[in-house]
Formats: sequence, C-alpha cells, structure tokens
Amino acid sequence: MNGAQSLLETLGHNGIEVCFANPGTSEMHFVAALDRQPHVRGVLGLFEGVVTGAADGYSRMLDKPAATLLHLGPGAANGLSSLHNALRARTSMVNIIGDHAGYHRSLDAPLTSDIEGALRPFSNWVRTSPSANSIAKDAADAIGYSLSGQISSLILPADTAWNNADQYTQPPNAVVPSSVSINPVDVDAAAARLRVSGPRTAILLGGRALRTSQLEAAARIAEATGATLLAETFAARTERGAGRPSVTKIPYPVEPSVELLQNFDALIFVDAKPPVAFFAYPDKPSVLTAPGTTFFTLSPIGADSLRALEDLDEAVGAGSAGNHLAEAVGSSRGRSSLLAELAPAPVPSGTITSAKLAAWLSGAIPENAIVLDESITTGWDFYAQTAQSQPHDYLGGTGGSIGWALPVGAGAAISSPDRKIIVLESDGSGMYNPQSLWTYAREQLDIVVLIFANRKYQILRNEMSNVGVPDFGPKAESLLDIGNPAIDWVSLSHGMGVPATRVGTIEELDRDFRAGLADSGPRLIEVLV
Amino acid sequence: MNGAQSLLETLGHNGIEVCFANPGTSEMHFVAALDRQPHVRGVLGLFEGVVTGAADGYSRMLDKPAATLLHLGPGAANGLSSLHNALRARTSMVNIIGDHAGYHRSLDAPLTSDIEGALRPFSNWVRTSPSANSIAKDAADAIGYSLSGQISSLILPADTAWNNADQYTQPPNAVVPSSVSINPVDVDAAAARLRVSGPRTAILLGGRALRTSQLEAAARIAEATGATLLAETFAARTERGAGRPSVTKIPYPVEPSVELLQNFDALIFVDAKPPVAFFAYPDKPSVLTAPGTTFFTLSPIGADSLRALEDLDEAVGAGSAGNHLAEAVGSSRGRSSLLAELAPAPVPSGTITSAKLAAWLSGAIPENAIVLDESITTGWDFYAQTAQSQPHDYLGGTGGSIGWALPVGAGAAISSPDRKIIVLESDGSGMYNPQSLWTYAREQLDIVVLIFANRKYQILRNEMSNVGVPDFGPKAESLLDIGNPAIDWVSLSHGMGVPATRVGTIEELDRDFRAGLADSGPRLIEVLV
Repeated sequence: MNGAQSLLETLGHNGIEVCFANPGTSEMHFVAALDRQPHVRGVLGLFEGVVTGAADGYSRMLDKPAATLLHLGPGAANGLSSLHNALRARTSMVNIIGDHAGYHRSLDAPLTSDIEGALRPFSNWVRTSPSANSIAKDAADAIGYSLSGQISSLILPADTAWNNADQYTQPPNAVVPSSVSINPVDVDAAAARLRVSGPRTAILLGGRALRTSQLEAAARIAEATGATLLAETFAARTERGAGRPSVTKIPYPVEPSVELLQNFDALIFVDAKPPVAFFAYPDKPSVLTAPGTTFFTLSPIGADSLRALEDLDEAVGAGSAGNHLAEAVGSSRGRSSLLAELAPAPVPSGTITSAKLAAWLSGAIPENAIVLDESITTGWDFYAQTAQSQPHDYLGGTGGSIGWALPVGAGAAISSPDRKIIVLESDGSGMYNPQSLWTYAREQLDIVVLIFANRKYQILRNEMSNVGVPDFGPKAESLLDIGNPAIDWVSLSHGMGVPATRVGTIEELDRDFRAGLADSGPRLIEVLV
Repeated sequence: MNGAQSLLETLGHNGIEVCFANPGTSEMHFVAALDRQPHVRGVLGLFEGVVTGAADGYSRMLDKPAATLLHLGPGAANGLSSLHNALRARTSMVNIIGDHAGYHRSLDAPLTSDIEGALRPFSNWVRTSPSANSIAKDAADAIGYSLSGQISSLILPADTAWNNADQYTQPPNAVVPSSVSINPVDVDAAAARLRVSGPRTAILLGGRALRTSQLEAAARIAEATGATLLAETFAARTERGAGRPSVTKIPYPVEPSVELLQNFDALIFVDAKPPVAFFAYPDKPSVLTAPGTTFFTLSPIGADSLRALEDLDEAVGAGSAGNHLAEAVGSSRGRSSLLAELAPAPVPSGTITSAKLAAWLSGAIPENAIVLDESITTGWDFYAQTAQSQPHDYLGGTGGSIGWALPVGAGAAISSPDRKIIVLESDGSGMYNPQSLWTYAREQLDIVVLIFANRKYQILRNEMSNVGVPDFGPKAESLLDIGNPAIDWVSLSHGMGVPATRVGTIEELDRDFRAGLADSGPRLIEVLV
C-alpha cells in the first residue's frame, strides 16, 4: 500500500465522503487511489475556487468536513479566496495539496513555491507530511482538527504519496481537540444582566447558534426577559422561515446598524463577536455598538452554543418572573410570538424591481429549500422579506470574498440531494467563479440560479459616496461598469451545459422558476433588473 | 491632495501607463484619483487572475511594469496564481492591494486577512504603506524594485489613500537598485571552455536573453566555436522565426531532454538556470544534465545578458581561429546558417490532427505576430514546427500555473496595439481564467483565440503512466474527463461578447482564422481535435 492509499483509507474511515478536486500531475497517485476507496466520492471542479467553495457549502449544511484536492502552490492559490470565506464561516474542511517530491523541491523547478506560506493566512492548521508512513496519522490529525469548525491544509509531497507505507496497518482515528467550554460564571452573569435589564439587552447569535434548536432556546429566553434576538450580519447558515423564531439581522450599512444597536446597553454573545463595520469609512464609526455597551460572552466561538443557551434559559427561568412565559414557547408547548408565521408578501407583477423581487421571492421559496444569497444591492430586502416564507436554510456571505454563492451552492446541493437549492447571484459576483455551472451540469445538481443583471458594480457606486467621493470621472465610471459588453448569462450557462432563460417580468420569472423547481437538474434564469 | 492622488501621480511620473484593475470599496479613492492622472489608463478585469495575468503579458512585451489594483486579501489571492507565472517569467509588475484602514484592522472585520503573508510567496517585494505621506515614496520604491524584472506588491490601507498627504510636494523618482553585474572572470572562463571544447558545450539562453540582439550575439559565438544554442523550456518571450537565429528548446518530457543534454560536457548559462525536470517521477532523474556536466554562469539572472554575450563574442573571436566566422554573422554582414529561413510546412487539409495543426500554424502566423502557446498536448510540435514561420514573438508558460494564455494575451494586446495576437489555448486550461474574454471584448483587443477542444485533461492521462499508474479506475477516469458536459466555447465566447465559431477541418480553421486576422477586434475559434 502506498502513502496515497493509506491517506484515502484514513479519510474514508473517518467519515470523509466527498473529495472536491482539481488535480494535477503531483496528485495522480491520490486520484488513482480513489478507486480503491468506495466511501469517498470524487467531484471535479474546473477551477479551484469552485473546489474549495463547494467544500464550504457541503460543510455548512452537514457540519462535517469534505476533502479538497489541489495542485501545488498555484492550485492552492486559486482556492484561497473561497477558503477565506470558509474560514469566516467556521467551516470544517480538509484540504490536500500536492507538492513536488521532497528531493525535487530544492531544485527550484518552475512550479515550486512556498505552499505552506500561501495557505497559512487562509487555514487554521497547516502541515507538510514528510513521508508515506506519516501521511495517515497526519490526515487523521487534519480531520480531527477540522471537526471543530476549522480549515486544515495538509501538503502531500508526491513521494509521500507514491512511496510504500510499510509501517501502515490500519487507518488511525481522528481525534477532536478538546473543545471550548461554557463557563458557568458567564451563564450566571448573563442571567443576572437579563433579570435586571432584559429589554435593554440583545442576545447576538452567530455561527452555529442560528440553527432551530438554539433559536428556540434563545426565543424562550427573550420571551422570559424581554431581550431582543439579533443575528450577525454575516452568518454561514440560518434556519428560518415559518414556524421558527425570527431574528433581526444587524444591517450591513453603518448608520442603521448603529441606530439599531443604540437600543441596547448590553450584548450577550452566542458563537458571535462584537459587531463592527464591514469597511472603515471616513467620518463613520468602525465600532457599531453605543459607547459603554457591556459585552457578555455566553458561548465562545466554537463552544456548544445549544448547551449554553439551555443553561441560560434555566438560569433566567429559575430566577425570574418570566418562568411561565418561557414554558409557553417551543413546538410542544404552545406558540411563541417570536415564531414566524407563514405570511409571504402579495405576489407582484409586471416589470421587475428590487422591491417586487423581494416580495415575489417571499412566496416562491419552497418548503425546506436551501437559499444562497449573494444578491447584494438587488437583494437588500430579501432577508427581511423572507422571514415569513416557508421554512428554509439561508446561507449568506461570511468573509467578503466575492463570487461565493455559485460554488457554495454546488457543495450544498451535493450535501443535500433531496432538497431544492436556490442560488441568488449577481452578475458582477457571478463572474468570479462561473465555472461552478459546469459542475452543476456534470453532477446534475438540483439548483435554480437567479442571476440579477444590473450590469454594473452597483455596490461600488454606492460605496463611492460612502467613502466621500460624491462625483467621479469617466475612468472611475468605466471601472464600475460591467455593461460594455453586456454579459449574456444565457449563453454562458448553455456553454457549460446548464439550461437557461432570460426574463424581464415577474410573470416570466415565476413561470421559469417553477419550471426549474419542477425539474431535477440545474437551471439558470437571468433576471434583468 | 490625498494619498491616492499622490500615488497615482507617482505612478504616472515614473512611466506606469496602464493599471489593470478589479477594485472594491477600499480602493475607491484610488479609482477616483485615476481621473486626475491623464498618463495612467484603467483596464477592468472581472476576475483578478485576469488582472495580474494581463500585467504579466504587458511587461513581457515592453520590459516595463504595469500596475494592478486588487481588493484586499481575497482579491489578491485570486491574482496569486498568475503572479506565480509572472515571478517565474521575471516580469516587472507593481501590484497595489487595498486594505482596511489601519485602525480598522484590529477589529477583525470579516474581510480582514494577512495580506502581506498571502503575497509574500508570490512577490519579490512586499510593503504596507503606513500613511498618506509615505505612499508616494513607497510607490517609487515599488516601481524601482520592479524594473529589474521583479514583482512588487504595495499594500494601500484605505486611510493611507484618503488622508491628506500634506507633506507631498512632487512625485519621487523610482530608483533601480544596483543591478547584477557581469564578472569578467566568468566571461574568460566561458571563452576558455568554448575554445577548448566548443562542440561539447551548449549555451543555455533564458529570460530576456531570447531576444533578437542576444540571439544574434549567441549565434556568432556558436558559429565561431561549434557550440550549440539551447533555450530554456519555459521562457517568457522568444523572438524567433525567419531571419532570426534558431535555438533548440529543451523538451518538456524527461527522456528526450536527458538525451539532448548528454551531448554536452558543459553548459554556459545566460539568464538561465541549470535545467531540471518539471515534475519528479518515480524512477526518473530530476536533474536533466549528464553527471559531471560543468556549469558556467556567464550572465546571472537579471544581469545585462546582451553585454555578457558581446563580451564573450569578443573573447572567443579575439582568441580563436573562428574569428572570421563570427564576422560573417549578423544582418549587415552576410547570412549565418543559424538564421532561420522562411519555410513553413506544406498546407495540410481535411480533418484536424495535432500534426496537421502544427503544419498549418507554421504557415498561418502573420509577420510580427505575438503568439501565446498554452496548447499543451495538442501543440507538442508547435514550437519546433514554427521555427521557420514569419518572424514573431513566442510567449510560453513559465511557472506552470494553468490558464495563463488568455489573461497574458490581454496584456500583450494592450502593450502592442499595432500587432496581431494569437492565443493558442486548450479547453481545460482555458477554463481557469475564461473571464479574460470579456476584457478582450471590452477593450476590442486584436486577438484571435484558438481553443483546442479534446475534452479531457489529456496531459494528466499521460502523466498517470509517467508516475507509474498504467491502469486506473472509473473515478480517476472521471476526474481526467471534461467532456461531460462538453464545454461549448462558442456559447461561452458569445456570452462575453467575443464573436466565435467552431471548426472541424483545416479548411474551416484557415478560413475563420484569416477572417479573424482581417478584423480588428477579438475572435474565438473552437477547434475540435
């Protein structure tokens, strides 16, 4: 058995079921070994941003890692931008990056580069496996480390892959490093605060605390204490819609988020961090909370947020007059006012506007859909408007790397083949990883993509005035315009094997969207806005 | 005047004429400042691999830097793969990468990352400019450093851009660091070697030594001494074709390169390094030269290779019986047997094969064209077969980052608007930076692209057996196949505004290629092979 085969066996043994790949020469032994490992499926991406983005989407849905396979420094480099988002999404991922054989590196052949150096800014854990006998253990370490929502990057020199692993006997078990724990003192402090001044307190939920169980626990606490539930602006996945507790997302622009947060003297963090502006702007604050706001960390990043919330629920319930209210919440115990009702907006019609799109979308999301939203300026209102849609998972931007929704959608679809995937993408953003569409067609993924074509970098036009440049000249104008030539998304999509249409009215959109949902493969709709 | 304006003024003052850009919020002041700087043109790319690749192509043609504008860590990351090739091409480039305002970085907003760390493996020089008053000097340093064929990456925090540069008076001059010099002892040693054993000696030319002047000097030396002229396998730009000295390129595969190099007991390096295998393979050598081969470094990387060759010419001419031969070479002094004659292969016809393509191409290249060759397996014979084509510049792969030809072609076209650009691209490679086509259409670049569509990663199929995996299963087979679905390059190209056709015979190819040359804008031809 060679090193690559022992590596694949270790991946399969530890529950890795999918390897998103764009391989090269150095990875051929890994590729060949896939056929000896029935538990690991290979999924090809034509570009590495698709590969790492898909692994992100897969893990966001399943809370377990996929593997990726990347080709040396440049192959890894092409995947870094999606890794940045995954890092911020606290995704579990195990990257395998081929390298030259150890003895070949010192010759400085053209493809040689500092792969560890390239990966380190975008990974939580980086290691180069020195030999065929070490690779299985290194892989188990990589998987174990990743399981707590981290990015592991394991470099596989070609001779580590092809040499005989003569000391290998069986795949080692991945061990999760000791997890971050909940401090009872923090629970008591948060409970005390809520008892004293619940209505001036917000519970800020992020990361994996935006799942139904955590939200229900948080809703009980909010009902009992008068606290407000807030969600981080950039959350990897939120379970929401009818029958689930509603949470207010902190807005992206500075002014409304400052306005919202000045209602609170204290924030309680649950898998979340103090809210700050996405960008700095001249003459605007970077810290969004009011001066003097007190911070309580109930559940640190990566800790068991459900347990933390249940402990807090008990603490406030036991000690407050709100105990009976708390008991009224939850599916089996009556209905909370915080649970969203199914109440989509009235169906609009005619020419498409952003407002009509939001209203239409609120009624169009099918039950149990997975919605990926990179609609940016077109979709400012999508999140708010879909709070009372059918229950769905909502995947958002996390790290600000543009073009994430198409590749993350691929991984979400592969993770959840029995669910409908809806990708809300912009024409500017969509051009960063358009190769994703080819993987959609290849794997016949059940995805409907809406491309909102405004033919400009509209957000940058807005940002120009935000940074204090109200008027700009023709050169700047040109760098914010992507309408010359207009991108023909229908042709692009056909070019990669995904059926596509273009629509100009809500009626056409609705017709083509429903046709896409009725089919089982991918479909793209270019929406002229 | 703000920092961004002082930066633009410094770029323009020091001869930067083009800024390839994919900007974001943090770079808005830079973008706005472009309109105050008449000497610097902005060229938009929809993806950063296009941006840095185009800057590479521009510099390969003009031996001077273009600037790039990239958006924080993820934007820079998307450009790294093209930077790797540029680094190996010894390209001059000045990257400007926006970052958060200094005071905003410590807040760890979602887009925060270690930008310096990400750039360092792919740059020769990295600096973060701390203030509006420092940015002009930092930019001059970046330009100066780049001029010797280096990659400079200058990080521009947003407040460095927007703050007032109150100490700025005028743009500082870029200063080239002291250059690598030619050692007369090395010239004498090489000359002595050539006098003693010229026919067992090869002069290995790389980098900027593959230009006509250097090649003519090298040809005089070869004629005088019986030495052989060799070219590095991966050279940024070679001036070649009829009327120019012919050079044998060291082949890419291990066996023929070892066979070639065993003819020599000594190599003389001119802007080149000892030849090594591109990849390591089990049971094949990584060092390609015969054991005991003596190495002479005549002109170190980055030195004045023309002067080195002229000095060597004089040294061997003065001391050898071949003096009169040396004088017979050169355009004004008679014709050398090393100068290529115009002798394209007979025009083939019918169904397309690799061999017919090579023959056809040898006659199709128009005079003074710029040819970019990423044809990989389809084009193994293109280089050899086009040695006697019309004079042209040949741009090759340098660092092994796949997908370089489309973006590098954009920069070559912008550098040389009066020349015809021919991009020879493969269907697999072309999918790494397909967004390049949009910039072709936007700027109406005079480029004819041939996409060779074999619908597989053929080189990896070859490499499987090279690394010792003769048989592979269906999963491996699937990861090397890109024909399901087939990529429709005509649709893709139309989608980005570039007229396109598909051809299945040499006659159709020839017809559409000539039509493309006759037009002044871009044209794509999908060639079924």
